[in-house]
Amino acid sequence: MIQVSQDSIKKTDGNVASPKGYLAKGVHCGLRYSKKDLGIIISSRPAVSAAVYTQSHFQAAPIKVTQESLKKSAHLQAVIVNSANANACTGEQGLKDAYEMRRQSADMLGIEPELVAVSSTGVIGEYLNMESITKGISLLAETEPAEGDFEEAILTTDTVIKQTCYELTIGGQRVTIGGAAKGSGMIHPNMATMLGFVTTDACIEESALQRALREITDVSFNQITVDGDTSTNDMVLVMANGCAGNERLHEEHEDWPVFKKGLQLACTDLAKQIARDGEGATKLIEVEVNGAKSNLEAQIIAKKIVGSNLVKTAVYGTDANWGRIIVAIGDSMAAVTPEKVEIYLGGQCLFKNNEPQPFSEELAKTYLENSEVKIEVRLQEGDGKGTAWGCDLTYEYVKINASYRT
Amino acid sequence: MIQVSQDSIKKTDGNVASPKGYLAKGVHCGLRYSKKDLGIIISSRPAVSAAVYTQSHFQAAPIKVTQESLKKSAHLQAVIVNSANANACTGEQGLKDAYEMRRQSADMLGIEPELVAVSSTGVIGEYLNMESITKGISLLAETEPAEGDFEEAILTTDTVIKQTCYELTIGGQRVTIGGAAKGSGMIHPNMATMLGFVTTDACIEESALQRALREITDVSFNQITVDGDTSTNDMVLVMANGCAGNERLHEEHEDWPVFKKGLQLACTDLAKQIARDGEGATKLIEVEVNGAKSNLEAQIIAKKIVGSNLVKTAVYGTDANWGRIIVAIGDSMAAVTPEKVEIYLGGQCLFKNNEPQPFSEELAKTYLENSEVKIEVRLQEGDGKGTAWGCDLTYEYVKINASYRT
Repeated sequence: MIQVSQDSIKKTDGNVASPKGYLAKGVHCGLRYSKKDLGIIISSRPAVSAAVYTQSHFQAAPIKVTQESLKKSAHLQAVIVNSANANACTGEQGLKDAYEMRRQSADMLGIEPELVAVSSTGVIGEYLNMESITKGISLLAETEPAEGDFEEAILTTDTVIKQTCYELTIGGQRVTIGGAAKGSGMIHPNMATMLGFVTTDACIEESALQRALREITDVSFNQITVDGDTSTNDMVLVMANGCAGNERLHEEHEDWPVFKKGLQLACTDLAKQIARDGEGATKLIEVEVNGAKSNLEAQIIAKKIVGSNLVKTAVYGTDANWGRIIVAIGDSMAAVTPEKVEIYLGGQCLFKNNEPQPFSEELAKTYLENSEVKIEVRLQEGDGKGTAWGCDLTYEYVKINASYRT
Repeated sequence: MIQVSQDSIKKTDGNVASPKGYLAKGVHCGLRYSKKDLGIIISSRPAVSAAVYTQSHFQAAPIKVTQESLKKSAHLQAVIVNSANANACTGEQGLKDAYEMRRQSADMLGIEPELVAVSSTGVIGEYLNMESITKGISLLAETEPAEGDFEEAILTTDTVIKQTCYELTIGGQRVTIGGAAKGSGMIHPNMATMLGFVTTDACIEESALQRALREITDVSFNQITVDGDTSTNDMVLVMANGCAGNERLHEEHEDWPVFKKGLQLACTDLAKQIARDGEGATKLIEVEVNGAKSNLEAQIIAKKIVGSNLVKTAVYGTDANWGRIIVAIGDSMAAVTPEKVEIYLGGQCLFKNNEPQPFSEELAKTYLENSEVKIEVRLQEGDGKGTAWGCDLTYEYVKINASYRT
């Protein structure tokens, strides 16, 4: 956790278009029946940019095209995103389509194609309807920005839009970080993907931005799980256009911790919104592991617990079934001494000294009826800390995922 | 896979008590409301024995006691098993109770305590009711063996008993391998555990038996998954009492491959019965991966696919959703080249050359309506083969696991 004064960071009602010099649009182009399905974020000038991508062997075509754009110069001026179709496992044709989507967007904006990132989410293994995409890009050119349109255009089976905004003070200047995300299952009936788009008007060094994003993704987006699967299209992208007019940030700058903390808060906020909106979910589950040998071991155990079907169904059933938490911890490769492990739920200790502890089942049940549930595990092996977020496993999850593709 | 002539191996209707010199009993002692809850397998003489145990950090008390028994001499003459209570996470008292259970069983049989293995399955974190156990052991002494009683006594939420039997010809002698197992979730509402008990009248060298069991467990019991969790009480035990009168088997014996193949068939048969009876399951899913860099990589990918909630729900919904199989493969650390991967279902090719293949959705749907479904993946990276077994994920699974403990 990065320690900075909370005075220098403030959460606001803003969104991905709130930082200076950005606008965001969304339209319906016909990939979906009636909902918006194509969106774009545009910066008034090239922005220093960084991204992290899915580790899947089957990276989708748009991921490859975006990687190529960023390899050229680490600057982006726009990101075009469609829902309904992931353009994944689509071979040469898919790659051609993603390049074409990039080129048309660049032409529309009068910029170089390498300044455009491409992102897709939706059905795997179907070719993009390029007629709709072409029509949609023309529509985007004519359409005025409106709040929520971009956020809506990138959703698949998500039930709510996800947005965030933080204001920071850096070198006396106000700097804003905004964000939008989508994700409901890590992957869907066929709808794929977790996407995160973060914008900031900060002026910042390229390599510092890339390192910060990678480090922060590991403790935010990478610490959520809905069903344990990794999509072919996952991507988190951050753009920093420098419009705030601050002194250029780098890792030795005295206000670097403030920016990094702000970026972490924005990413964590979006990640939690995704976990809460997991397919069929009724509750956000947060698992905090303290006292591991390392932060990494704490993160792994936290994610293992929050990803356990048995823990997820127990939380759904408001059952303080700590035996299932034990099973998830016991299964990990991390350093664990049964006699030292302690498990807490809603202020009550359930397990300690390798023995069950007396606790009020009634209080525990009442606690588990909250829409946010926190499980705390103390290992007493070292100083490692880690948190993970997930959701309960419900009948609705099975229904969503067992229903036939339409 | 071990290659031997099928003439020398025959499946029969037998069970764990079929090999010469064994008997098995089961009684109701009061740990459960009315069902049988305590069972014992007895050999007429000490049997060379081997076991593999859960890798959980929180190994239950009976696991520790059994390990100690086998460390003394690698011989067992009996195994006592209770259901309803796992005697796990029960500290010093739990260990004392497991030793007492071993001592009472040994006294009843008039043998050394170190010739008895102890096994428990059921609720985690509650102390054993030793009054019931003591009563049950007396009852076992008086009770006559009857088919199915032992198998029933070791069940928790399983819906059917699991048993197997194979007859082999070894050095001209008939050798029998029998087995019983339980397991429905890897762990339950609180009911834990996968247990496997294999008996044989073969005469066999200790170290050869231990090595064969470990190797075979890795491709049978360890390749099934119902919900991805590992219990605190998992154990597979094999006893070989030599009553068949065969020439002592060792790894250089010409009929060693026959015995090993028989043991593998028995373990695989039991493992598949467990997967098929997974909590809430309607179907057995088999995933076969060919052409991996190594057998281990093939096994890992097969288990990852069969353990994916998204694949499991798709099979339940009879949806030939190969994108989800791609996602599960893509996530693995194994060597995978998207362009070389092929996916087959019910004789149809769904994916090849990194592109979707035309196939009949109707035929695929019909195929997925079978009670046994096989998914085949070809990687074309090497000669590695691996198979894994699991089941579909249904509303009933959520119901079983979200219902409050009673």
